[in-house]
Amino acid sequence: MKLFRFGEEGQEKPGVLLENVPYDVSAFGEDYNEAFFQNNGLARLQAYLQEQRAQLQEVPAGVRLGSAIARPSKIVCIGLNYADHARETNAKVPEEPILFFKATTALCGPNDAVVIPKGSEKLDWEVELGVVIGKKASYVSEEEALDYVAGYVLHNDYSERAFQLERGGQWVKGKSCDTFAPVGPFLATPEEVGDIDNLRLWLTVNGKTMQDGNTSNLIFKIPFLVSYLSQFMTLLPGDLITTGTPAGVGLGMNPPLYLKAGDVVELGIDGLGSSRQEVKAYGQN
Amino acid sequence: MKLFRFGEEGQEKPGVLLENVPYDVSAFGEDYNEAFFQNNGLARLQAYLQEQRAQLQEVPAGVRLGSAIARPSKIVCIGLNYADHARETNAKVPEEPILFFKATTALCGPNDAVVIPKGSEKLDWEVELGVVIGKKASYVSEEEALDYVAGYVLHNDYSERAFQLERGGQWVKGKSCDTFAPVGPFLATPEEVGDIDNLRLWLTVNGKTMQDGNTSNLIFKIPFLVSYLSQFMTLLPGDLITTGTPAGVGLGMNPPLYLKAGDVVELGIDGLGSSRQEVKAYGQN
Repeated sequence: MKLFRFGEEGQEKPGVLLENVPYDVSAFGEDYNEAFFQNNGLARLQAYLQEQRAQLQEVPAGVRLGSAIARPSKIVCIGLNYADHARETNAKVPEEPILFFKATTALCGPNDAVVIPKGSEKLDWEVELGVVIGKKASYVSEEEALDYVAGYVLHNDYSERAFQLERGGQWVKGKSCDTFAPVGPFLATPEEVGDIDNLRLWLTVNGKTMQDGNTSNLIFKIPFLVSYLSQFMTLLPGDLITTGTPAGVGLGMNPPLYLKAGDVVELGIDGLGSSRQEVKAYGQN
Repeated sequence: MKLFRFGEEGQEKPGVLLENVPYDVSAFGEDYNEAFFQNNGLARLQAYLQEQRAQLQEVPAGVRLGSAIARPSKIVCIGLNYADHARETNAKVPEEPILFFKATTALCGPNDAVVIPKGSEKLDWEVELGVVIGKKASYVSEEEALDYVAGYVLHNDYSERAFQLERGGQWVKGKSCDTFAPVGPFLATPEEVGDIDNLRLWLTVNGKTMQDGNTSNLIFKIPFLVSYLSQFMTLLPGDLITTGTPAGVGLGMNPPLYLKAGDVVELGIDGLGSSRQEVKAYGQN
């Protein structure tokens, strides 16, 4: 299945893509949130679709997409998980995963504008593969880890590099501004995606390719990451793990290149669709 | 007002302390969560109490207390915010606040056991003053910051020092295990607390005083912190900011001293009550 959410910000409704046609499943009566995943929502939605498919209404073209998942309890990010990206930022390849969080208030729709925060001069992009947790995970083994995955999403881990690296301390400070986590266009359940370890991911700025990587180059693979994280915290249904970015971020350029109002960022991952964010100044309509 | 939550984990009910007597306000029909604070819940609860006080039932003695607030969207922690604590951990006094997050899954009741995670050998304590946000805050000035505060809570920011400092990267890894955030016994609204800049806070282990500080020594004060944080992320109603710990943590001892199963940690802050956590091994009943 491919799940998406649509409508006004804060009032999104659930939808499902069937053979690339978007259908409204509001009548199913649930959002794609912790309770949905926890209560076997994917299987129940599948059964609902089998019964109701003929009655489903299409979602009109041009409707805003929301984040593919409702606000999770946490967004856990993995840092420096592609060797080429570690090199370009002059960081060592980590011996074990580097974790940081992103405020869940950063979540937004895949095609919403990204807003340059007040005082920001170093807004940067990071195309990433996101993993959505399907059931509560604590001390999960690597072998069983994929049983805890509901599906996958496209994510742009926007980062303010001065806030992240020059303002005293932990990276969360540069990762958490509003609009810094566009997620979607849709959540794809595992059977839709094919080989998760061999997905191309790419990002352009104003049409110019900046990132062009492949999940085959992930230093720490998804089963390991889920298992590893679950040693340090309980992962809840609906939680988002975002697995790191390949080379080609603005920070890694010489000289560094950052986003400015009017720029257009587009990104995609094989099987997970694409998204597009226009860059806006704070307060700009 | 003094608000608390009681009952089984995950099924807590709301309560109110009136002249130190705990009353059940389940009939008010709301938990102390984002929607409660956002929709002017404190004022509505106050009005409810004036009408219903004579009908309220006492909460029986011995009932478990839950976290004084429901799970927030985020727990934002301030690092090294007392000069004496920065010194004892060989850290520089920060030029601006150090932020890190704690997984909200770490939240638990004030007197719940703290569980030593698997593989942990360096479990440490940190008594802290917690600030609960009352309304959505983005780019709030220092002058208006206290208008965005719903109240204050006692918090023990449990930390696994090896996970935090020796496992590659960001502090969140050692701050987020289950039971690492006992909050309460109650949330006190500002008028209950007196001078928030002059509260004694203390912590004992097995009856021996380890921490004995005062919020007068906070490097960054609460209005500044709320304003500062709101430059980097939107704070939501019900969010918890925990403001840092004074000297006397296990990491700062020579040699360092960490908690072991059977130890008893007690802590308190003037006007915010006290809490008590017994230390348990993982899997121990």
